[in-house]
Amino acid sequence: MSLIVEKYGGTSVGSIERINAVAEKVAKSHAAGNQMVIVVSAMSGETNRLLEMAKEINADLPAREADVLVSTGEQVTIALLCMALINKGQQARSFTGGQVRIETDTSHGRARIQNIDSSRIKKHLDEGRVVVVAGFQGVDNDGNITTLGRGGSDTSAVALAAALKADECRIYTDVDGVYTADPRIVPEAHRMDEVTFEEMLELSSLGTKVLQIRSVEFAGKYKVPLRVLNSFKDGPGTLISYEGNKKMERAVIAGIAHNSDEAKLTITGVPDHPGVAHTILGRIAEKDINVDMIIQNIAADETTDFTFTVPRSDFDVATAILEKVSSELGARGVTGDNSIAKVSIVGVGMRSHTGVADLMFATLAEEGINIKMISTSEIKVSVIIDDKYTELAVRALHKAFDLDQKI
Amino acid sequence: MSLIVEKYGGTSVGSIERINAVAEKVAKSHAAGNQMVIVVSAMSGETNRLLEMAKEINADLPAREADVLVSTGEQVTIALLCMALINKGQQARSFTGGQVRIETDTSHGRARIQNIDSSRIKKHLDEGRVVVVAGFQGVDNDGNITTLGRGGSDTSAVALAAALKADECRIYTDVDGVYTADPRIVPEAHRMDEVTFEEMLELSSLGTKVLQIRSVEFAGKYKVPLRVLNSFKDGPGTLISYEGNKKMERAVIAGIAHNSDEAKLTITGVPDHPGVAHTILGRIAEKDINVDMIIQNIAADETTDFTFTVPRSDFDVATAILEKVSSELGARGVTGDNSIAKVSIVGVGMRSHTGVADLMFATLAEEGINIKMISTSEIKVSVIIDDKYTELAVRALHKAFDLDQKI
Repeated sequence: MSLIVEKYGGTSVGSIERINAVAEKVAKSHAAGNQMVIVVSAMSGETNRLLEMAKEINADLPAREADVLVSTGEQVTIALLCMALINKGQQARSFTGGQVRIETDTSHGRARIQNIDSSRIKKHLDEGRVVVVAGFQGVDNDGNITTLGRGGSDTSAVALAAALKADECRIYTDVDGVYTADPRIVPEAHRMDEVTFEEMLELSSLGTKVLQIRSVEFAGKYKVPLRVLNSFKDGPGTLISYEGNKKMERAVIAGIAHNSDEAKLTITGVPDHPGVAHTILGRIAEKDINVDMIIQNIAADETTDFTFTVPRSDFDVATAILEKVSSELGARGVTGDNSIAKVSIVGVGMRSHTGVADLMFATLAEEGINIKMISTSEIKVSVIIDDKYTELAVRALHKAFDLDQKI
Repeated sequence: MSLIVEKYGGTSVGSIERINAVAEKVAKSHAAGNQMVIVVSAMSGETNRLLEMAKEINADLPAREADVLVSTGEQVTIALLCMALINKGQQARSFTGGQVRIETDTSHGRARIQNIDSSRIKKHLDEGRVVVVAGFQGVDNDGNITTLGRGGSDTSAVALAAALKADECRIYTDVDGVYTADPRIVPEAHRMDEVTFEEMLELSSLGTKVLQIRSVEFAGKYKVPLRVLNSFKDGPGTLISYEGNKKMERAVIAGIAHNSDEAKLTITGVPDHPGVAHTILGRIAEKDINVDMIIQNIAADETTDFTFTVPRSDFDVATAILEKVSSELGARGVTGDNSIAKVSIVGVGMRSHTGVADLMFATLAEEGINIKMISTSEIKVSVIIDDKYTELAVRALHKAFDLDQKI
């Protein structure tokens, strides 16, 4: 008997028909002898419907009440899924985040899970019930409803799998698994049977939207066996593994990620003193803006140019802060670019292969694509380019690294 | 400084515009120096929308999950109302039934409130916040979400007012107050400034839909000063009083109630043995069917005819049970009538006036309306008539008892 945690996202439970289909699938798995814990998101469109109403009232959403509001979305789904299971003769019981005691900190809208009381779930599993848990939500120490942020249902599922020591955590989405590149851009992209945890972590943080990065981090921390599957059709999906499949022949890189969610800011001619980086980035951090890539160059005149990227949605705020900092520091000025894209190649194979970065740069040069920034880690190389070249770059790299045909 | 509990029903919070209007009203009351606790229902239509989805999945709604589902309706409203208050610069905090610990028994869909922890609310009131509570819902000892049944938000408000020892509990609806009769039937009906608790209890149980009977019972138990008001326009509403206003000239009866929600069943020719009533009604009670009026007549042949009324929605089930009981007891047979109406006159003035029942019977006789059953208490007389005569009966009685002009 295995204990399986399954997570179904918004489109997978987006209609009564789909909820019935999920119930059918889950009841079958239970009948086959598995203990089943199901984590669900709000029906697709529901969270936006609720937020639209809220924004009509108060454009500047009060965070605590926003969580009270949007958490109803998942609560509706758990009730409906349990009804569907019961209708099929399968005993089932629903739990909100608060009821199952998914304890979080108090950061409304982006809370972090601190503890889960799995005893209540286990009791119901042992009594033959399917347990259905509202994803995305938790409760703080004072009993306030919190949410984990968009995509947080993945994290809920992985955290539950860790707490319950589940045999597998299955994330059901509307795609077949993790692809070598976005198939909407690269028709030749193919599903990977397996991807290492480290690769998945990089791919998620670099723009591959299949799994939310926090859920991958959580899985890694507790070594939760994680599989991404398509809820709309059967298939093996992609397994996130922790040791790497030694027997499998692998391409040097596993996949290519891209995103256009960032913007680039440069403050030029900063007098070069110790602590300048902290002065600049501290002011950005004060406003809770995440800084991603950072580059600092010393110019001939002993001043420094300081460049970094921020989420595109924070571009205007960051620019205003930087202009203030610039005049305070007596710097030359501020320039910005919010039409950039980040394209990354990821693969543990890089560790044992030389020349990977060079092949990337050569490939982009051949296509006439200028590189604006470079960032590397042990298993990835990321470049910032003009975002109009994104698709061209991804396709060219997919071909250059022999990903076009499955090996 | 007064502590006021206000309850706004579904139509009063049925749109963003209405929610903003309620926030405006509440913020004003708070600014005038009152501590405000607001109880809200689901936005009108929302509970039905949720139940429609559920019924598409499982016609036989599992009670526990139905409560998980429909309780989201009020949760949405509390969040939106708090956002509206905060938007107007008024500090506010929302609470679900579970968060404020409105503890109930485990009867899903019709739970009864057992205890309320008012300490948490008081803390926030003392800190200058408006407290907004989800009506209609609570939580049992195991943390399961329960609901109090339709209209339960009135009960939530009264129970909170009792627990908080509020100075007044205001029930905002879409009517101006309690009327001498249904104004849709009797154009001459008028709003009462004041009605005694006992009269209100009878009126609610007999068909006046302004207040839910359980909320009136609850108010009476704890002597909560209760006022019914129109949320759409200003006015004094109707005060439910506990001592009666001695100074006020009153008509003999306060008002006329009617309902067409019942059906009549008769089992004829039952051999008259001790315990027959229990045998018959026990079988009905087993199916959780409420019996209202009961009449038993001894016939000349020492058999008995036994007549009672049940909710019209239970008519078919009750008929089937009764036919089985009839053959078991060797009775003559079963007859039923599900097109009846109950018309009642209510007033504490009856206590000191004779001939009230007689005037009622005479008035109906003059209109040629046949009386099928009669039931009386100290302050009311109810008759069962053919339901096609309902409007005629109510109008004639309203005139006969001098209610047509306000005194």
